[in-house]
Amino acid sequence: MKRTTRTRARIPRKTVYRLSIYFRCLNRLQNNGLQTVSSEALARAAGVKPTQLRKDLAHFGQFGTRGLGYDVAQLSKMISDVLGNQTLQPVVLVGAGNLGTALVSYGGFAREGFEIVAAFDVDPTRPRGRCPVPIHPMERLADFVRDRSVKMAILCVPAAVAQEVANQLFAAGLTGVLNFAPIVIHAPEDVIVNNVNLAIELENLSYFIQDE
Amino acid sequence: MKRTTRTRARIPRKTVYRLSIYFRCLNRLQNNGLQTVSSEALARAAGVKPTQLRKDLAHFGQFGTRGLGYDVAQLSKMISDVLGNQTLQPVVLVGAGNLGTALVSYGGFAREGFEIVAAFDVDPTRPRGRCPVPIHPMERLADFVRDRSVKMAILCVPAAVAQEVANQLFAAGLTGVLNFAPIVIHAPEDVIVNNVNLAIELENLSYFIQDE
Repeated sequence: MKRTTRTRARIPRKTVYRLSIYFRCLNRLQNNGLQTVSSEALARAAGVKPTQLRKDLAHFGQFGTRGLGYDVAQLSKMISDVLGNQTLQPVVLVGAGNLGTALVSYGGFAREGFEIVAAFDVDPTRPRGRCPVPIHPMERLADFVRDRSVKMAILCVPAAVAQEVANQLFAAGLTGVLNFAPIVIHAPEDVIVNNVNLAIELENLSYFIQDE
Repeated sequence: MKRTTRTRARIPRKTVYRLSIYFRCLNRLQNNGLQTVSSEALARAAGVKPTQLRKDLAHFGQFGTRGLGYDVAQLSKMISDVLGNQTLQPVVLVGAGNLGTALVSYGGFAREGFEIVAAFDVDPTRPRGRCPVPIHPMERLADFVRDRSVKMAILCVPAAVAQEVANQLFAAGLTGVLNFAPIVIHAPEDVIVNNVNLAIELENLSYFIQDE
């Protein structure tokens, strides 16, 4: 299903996160043989309020039948169409250090529809653990992403060089960056940067569990 | 600095996330030899509005001098006290599969004040990549976290068993869980669960960068 960027921009980013969660809940229901689900049960499984679920789905049309709930397969298919996650998306890893090579080795991305096709590093030959994809020098990045129509990168470089490397990614035409560097990346308007900061997540937990 | 749980509960979780980011920005400024910083400059570095920064800091007292800005060292020390990140916090890894062992090998947590002291797995002897900490059977978890006063766990088990394993963590007395399983964990009220879902982050990016 094609949607205009205009429509996309109107959908809140958090709604799209929740679609991903609904999709996974629906898949589990399907695997358990369920054909319909009430909005209350689906909302509970996803950890949201039923009103939130209904509001999120209302962005995309009318779903569910009063008293019968949602058709699990149909709703799952709709969300999958919206998210565009039926096809394997190529992704490049930039920064093949400890975390980067660990993420490639992890393998969980492929299960979810993302294929890490290559890694790029300022020093492709430095000694490192086993990396299951080829590691190229940064100079090859622009040509590679153009030739392979890659749009997304996982950025795993040290904070001190993250903005500079991110600028290279933007110049190469990448428009989606999953940033693991503990720094705020300043990006052009047409680029989306999502941040995963593992240490900050732990620090946040740590704050809330401190004793009196 | 000791703060009451009552105070902690009043501080929004997102404010605490932003404190972690301010702290990292201040450290970079300090490393660059700066002694004071305006709220505008610090906010820009952290990717927030100056009003947001001032509002976040107002939770913890009065900082900064009109016209002079913040004392970098003093503000950094205050945030560090609030976050309690001066001491190395012990953390256990639960689920020593591909992602779990990758995260232990990464090493970035230690730099940020968290020490992964041990891993636990239903099958500690199954073949896996090098894991730099001992891997114990799940049965030893409760005793271990009690003896070592561990409060936080990184949960890296498959979605299908994540809730069941999480329940074991709660029963063992762990009160902070960083969950990597792509599932919503239902937790007791006195437990904090933060979620990191790498595939959902990529899916979210992927949605927003789709062509028209």
